[in-house]
Amino acid sequence: MSATFGNKIKVTLFGQSHAQAIGAIVDGVPAGIFIDEERLSAFMDRRRAKDELATKRQEADKVLIKSGVVNSVTCGAPLCLMIENKDTRSQDYSNVAMVPRPSHSDFAAFVKYGGNNDIRGGGQFSGRLTAAMCAAGFICLEILRARGIEIVSHVSRIGAVSDEKLNQLKADDAVNKKLLASSFPVISEVAKDKMREEVLRAKSEGDSVGGEIECAVYNLPAGLGSDFFGSLESLIASAVFSVPAVKGIEFGAGFEFAQMWGSVANDSFILDENAQVVTDSNNCGGILGGISSGLPLIFKSAFKPTPSIAKAQRSVDLKDNKETELIIKGRHDPCIVPRACAVIEAVTAIALVNADGFVI
Amino acid sequence: MSATFGNKIKVTLFGQSHAQAIGAIVDGVPAGIFIDEERLSAFMDRRRAKDELATKRQEADKVLIKSGVVNSVTCGAPLCLMIENKDTRSQDYSNVAMVPRPSHSDFAAFVKYGGNNDIRGGGQFSGRLTAAMCAAGFICLEILRARGIEIVSHVSRIGAVSDEKLNQLKADDAVNKKLLASSFPVISEVAKDKMREEVLRAKSEGDSVGGEIECAVYNLPAGLGSDFFGSLESLIASAVFSVPAVKGIEFGAGFEFAQMWGSVANDSFILDENAQVVTDSNNCGGILGGISSGLPLIFKSAFKPTPSIAKAQRSVDLKDNKETELIIKGRHDPCIVPRACAVIEAVTAIALVNADGFVI
Amino acid sequence: MSATFGNKIKVTLFGQSHAQAIGAIVDGVPAGIFIDEERLSAFMDRRRAKDELATKRQEADKVLIKSGVVNSVTCGAPLCLMIENKDTRSQDYSNVAMVPRPSHSDFAAFVKYGGNNDIRGGGQFSGRLTAAMCAAGFICLEILRARGIEIVSHVSRIGAVSDEKLNQLKADDAVNKKLLASSFPVISEVAKDKMREEVLRAKSEGDSVGGEIECAVYNLPAGLGSDFFGSLESLIASAVFSVPAVKGIEFGAGFEFAQMWGSVANDSFILDENAQVVTDSNNCGGILGGISSGLPLIFKSAFKPTPSIAKAQRSVDLKDNKETELIIKGRHDPCIVPRACAVIEAVTAIALVNADGFVI
Amino acid sequence: MSATFGNKIKVTLFGQSHAQAIGAIVDGVPAGIFIDEERLSAFMDRRRAKDELATKRQEADKVLIKSGVVNSVTCGAPLCLMIENKDTRSQDYSNVAMVPRPSHSDFAAFVKYGGNNDIRGGGQFSGRLTAAMCAAGFICLEILRARGIEIVSHVSRIGAVSDEKLNQLKADDAVNKKLLASSFPVISEVAKDKMREEVLRAKSEGDSVGGEIECAVYNLPAGLGSDFFGSLESLIASAVFSVPAVKGIEFGAGFEFAQMWGSVANDSFILDENAQVVTDSNNCGGILGGISSGLPLIFKSAFKPTPSIAKAQRSVDLKDNKETELIIKGRHDPCIVPRACAVIEAVTAIALVNADGFVI
Repeated sequence: MSATFGNKIKVTLFGQSHAQAIGAIVDGVPAGIFIDEERLSAFMDRRRAKDELATKRQEADKVLIKSGVVNSVTCGAPLCLMIENKDTRSQDYSNVAMVPRPSHSDFAAFVKYGGNNDIRGGGQFSGRLTAAMCAAGFICLEILRARGIEIVSHVSRIGAVSDEKLNQLKADDAVNKKLLASSFPVISEVAKDKMREEVLRAKSEGDSVGGEIECAVYNLPAGLGSDFFGSLESLIASAVFSVPAVKGIEFGAGFEFAQMWGSVANDSFILDENAQVVTDSNNCGGILGGISSGLPLIFKSAFKPTPSIAKAQRSVDLKDNKETELIIKGRHDPCIVPRACAVIEAVTAIALVNADGFVI
Repeated sequence: MSATFGNKIKVTLFGQSHAQAIGAIVDGVPAGIFIDEERLSAFMDRRRAKDELATKRQEADKVLIKSGVVNSVTCGAPLCLMIENKDTRSQDYSNVAMVPRPSHSDFAAFVKYGGNNDIRGGGQFSGRLTAAMCAAGFICLEILRARGIEIVSHVSRIGAVSDEKLNQLKADDAVNKKLLASSFPVISEVAKDKMREEVLRAKSEGDSVGGEIECAVYNLPAGLGSDFFGSLESLIASAVFSVPAVKGIEFGAGFEFAQMWGSVANDSFILDENAQVVTDSNNCGGILGGISSGLPLIFKSAFKPTPSIAKAQRSVDLKDNKETELIIKGRHDPCIVPRACAVIEAVTAIALVNADGFVI
Repeated sequence: MSATFGNKIKVTLFGQSHAQAIGAIVDGVPAGIFIDEERLSAFMDRRRAKDELATKRQEADKVLIKSGVVNSVTCGAPLCLMIENKDTRSQDYSNVAMVPRPSHSDFAAFVKYGGNNDIRGGGQFSGRLTAAMCAAGFICLEILRARGIEIVSHVSRIGAVSDEKLNQLKADDAVNKKLLASSFPVISEVAKDKMREEVLRAKSEGDSVGGEIECAVYNLPAGLGSDFFGSLESLIASAVFSVPAVKGIEFGAGFEFAQMWGSVANDSFILDENAQVVTDSNNCGGILGGISSGLPLIFKSAFKPTPSIAKAQRSVDLKDNKETELIIKGRHDPCIVPRACAVIEAVTAIALVNADGFVI
Repeated sequence: MSATFGNKIKVTLFGQSHAQAIGAIVDGVPAGIFIDEERLSAFMDRRRAKDELATKRQEADKVLIKSGVVNSVTCGAPLCLMIENKDTRSQDYSNVAMVPRPSHSDFAAFVKYGGNNDIRGGGQFSGRLTAAMCAAGFICLEILRARGIEIVSHVSRIGAVSDEKLNQLKADDAVNKKLLASSFPVISEVAKDKMREEVLRAKSEGDSVGGEIECAVYNLPAGLGSDFFGSLESLIASAVFSVPAVKGIEFGAGFEFAQMWGSVANDSFILDENAQVVTDSNNCGGILGGISSGLPLIFKSAFKPTPSIAKAQRSVDLKDNKETELIIKGRHDPCIVPRACAVIEAVTAIALVNADGFVI
């Protein structure tokens, strides 16, 4: 536990990969908001597995709105967003029940839950749960969108291939539009082709590959967030690390700061053409003292390669405490990074609507 | 706001750099724990500014225990840990009131608080608040220590200079002992000398320099933490990003994962000499599925250079909305990274005692 | 909002009276607990409308366990407990949309939600939601039962008719067994008959009647709860007042204390036949300083009469801001108190598993 | 534990009766609010022991504002409000350490804290802690007052003597003004004299007496609070039961509802002289469906008699597990109800600023 995030718009997740359903309760959504099911469906589609780059498990990911909405408009009651699991093949997991998959949650979950954890499809640790995050995040994205705040992300790296950076100083509408329409969002088409090759190469070898996602929030007003434990970095990191496979996050220049001197790192304040206070660089990633500065909020997150690979791996049989070789069956993504872009946007939205100073 | 962290041992911070006092309330500490004030004082001392590498502001950082302890033993009531501010020179800040320091909290705080924020010494955004984090963290560190859990950190980088890595697979007692006794903890003495040079060079130029801290938790039992929003990464990141100047965090291989393939990245399960299940590498940093695996929990955090530098900088005068040049007075650290090691250990302890499955 | 209660076992409610479904997410339930669906069904049945004393709306209240349970055993993931709404007649509410029912939530909800609240069947304010409370509470009751803790309640008053008191000093197994098997639990059969008459009389006049429920928790160990805001009274009251129609709660002697002197009110400590420390009376209702004393925890809650009555009432038409007469259609309970006993037991269990010191 | 209340303006209490200090951290107070120390002092004074009706322990209760306020104006950082304990006589408690006082927290605290609880003056369970509640509550009262919301209370009963009721339909400014200026607020002077006699009679016999406080919130806008667990009754009850000695609370007609029929209990909606929707009675105490209705919010709370009385009482010596007679030394109030009025107002304010829909 803790399936619940936020203290203004509270999101509570539920479900396991092969349970009857997964979903989210979204509590605190103001009454009177129109829920556009077509837009919701389009957003869910960006995360869905569709092609050769992804798992063969095919789920429609239709979001059933069980409560909180009357005639397409929120009524103030919590929204129950439910997605049924249909294409499950639980038998694939018979051999992993007692032989933990390397770098997967199996072993830690086995210890924590005394062997009662749901091993089928990764149980509650499955990337499948990110569909529920997307459903809940969509509601938050819509609330932000109504205020002109736009969250956009792209695959900034897969293996050895990296993409260009998002605009660090202001929204580039054409780029954003393109990225938000894609289920494999990359700025440079050349980079995208190379990334695709890298994924297919890993796949053909029964392997997987990691990557990075860069995410930006444009038009976020200055003054959101807080000092102490309520910093925007704390809030966003807390949400982003709930996404399976994320192992790092950095805001603005992030780890590059470690090698920089203050005179180079500092973002000078200047006046823009409208006499508004802005900065001439954005190494701070739009956050000063834990509070939004008015510049684009920018962060990168690092994803480890999918731990479930087809290659034989060493592991231990927990039943008789012997080392063994493990061959993983099941259907897995060779690279989950493209599908994770929508998820990162979703959890960022969930975090931001709960930022100090954001009035619901 | 949010000055409060945790749901088992709740830590609430208060104070500003030049307020009468700073401090922390620590609620949920079991009754009957001996509080060793000498050990507390020694821990506080690791964070204190002492030499030429640090600010000239000299504070004794004596922790006054105002409540919760009777005859050196906790009584079950919340501990009020208070540190008085004594060596304040508020007049140094007269010129920054309306001219925000680049990359400092000033501008964002000005917007958030409508100009009522406490500008003196950085107010509640000051690194001074980390003394309160240390006082609260000490209590949590003692709770962990009583269970054999050890948290240790070192300066893994300052500018261009990097240190060796901590042992990723098991505690190296000699190294840990040395680091925990130091207020500038570095494994390699050679690296330490070079780091010192780098800091002094920055200082002599009226500049500052960033760095990294690597932190390890040894002997953490498997099974702590949670799926969903309660992952250890979420919990620790949320605490660590509350430390001023932290702009990045990565667990285990972190951002290196992005360039790795699964077959290389995965940590194989093996049996150690005691027939315990361990892994032969620790790229996952001791966390699987958000839950501790029993291996050392390892993460790195990135610090930006102190934004307050002596060099002239560009900024904007908010009173008449004109660009201007800013010369910052006041006493500042050319590099806060060495002093931040104790802080990182403290907030990590605060996070861990609140991990799911940690029974208080 | 706040659909979520608790910080150890978190219960999140969702649904409206005429939504597709109502339900609860129960997060933090330990893995490995057997969920006996027959017992669950029997518990739900105690709250169900069944006879002439209750509404004619007939719902099976079958609890669908959508997640968190594998082969009847909890797996550590949150439980999604869902109950579908079937016997809805939304057209009954056409005339109350703009004419608020006296003493019902309509008017306050109209203001809060700007007219977007779900008026059908009372929306999220409906007593129907207590079915979801019962489903979630059942899980908590089972956790308590496994530790020998028993919660029992009875209708202590309906209108002018009152029942005997529960045993204030120790469990009376025969009485408890009888009460827990009944959907109209009353100790005295004579009182029960008179209560039934009172309800039928109110019903025949198109009216409704209020009542009281006395609830006891037997075998609760001493030492649970807390000082400050974590008192057992705070915790239980907070849960009990979430039940629609509850307008008062008192622990032990409650409001009678106001007329007592200390020498009479105080419960003297004595040794029982097993040399255990007990008290010779239980005016404090088993709670001292917010903490359980080891004596039975006893409280009473007061229910207002169902506001939906068949008699014509005065109200205001909000559309044209004119006073008007309102005739309420729909199917309503003349007295909800008997059905509320299971609900009070459920929310008390939800509160207690979240008490300070209760180790999950 | 739980020393913290609220999720918008968080109040964290600390201290014990004979600790160096007691106090509160108030987090989330907007920047820019003028803190009038004279008004604060006057409010604290209403709770202070002053005359023959109260304990002889004399404390100045001067509130030291250690942080969060610069030049009498809040700066956005948490306020640390500290009150030093000065007139302590810890030796008085030597004999109660192992002989729990009947109906006092001693026994339950002994079990909970394993004998490490602070027995001096009742430790953290002492009524003295209500001074910290008042200091924190004052800040919240000022926030409410700035919006025209007024909280007023009076002693509605002591023993056999009861006062008139507060106006249930609208504020009576003359009455309110008188009550808010008094440290023994009673509407009827005749009742007040009789109450005083009752207290003095109890005192002269070495005894104590209980009572009731009626509290009203005038000018509270409709639409605050929530369905589910966020009802105003839940929120206020949770805060009020944190006050030592409170054992019951009822809203509006409260326990009288149990004997009423719906047609009598229901508050009809009418239009007032300004064509505003009001009700012609206020049995619901200004709360419908957990949400404020716009009518005065009214509740009563019941106080048990001070358990510390001078008369000899039976108890058990926990050291040798033998029944014994206990004579309590120390200085105690024969009736704490008059002093508790300011406390009830304070915690009600703390609750209301955290109500759903209250925009800070």
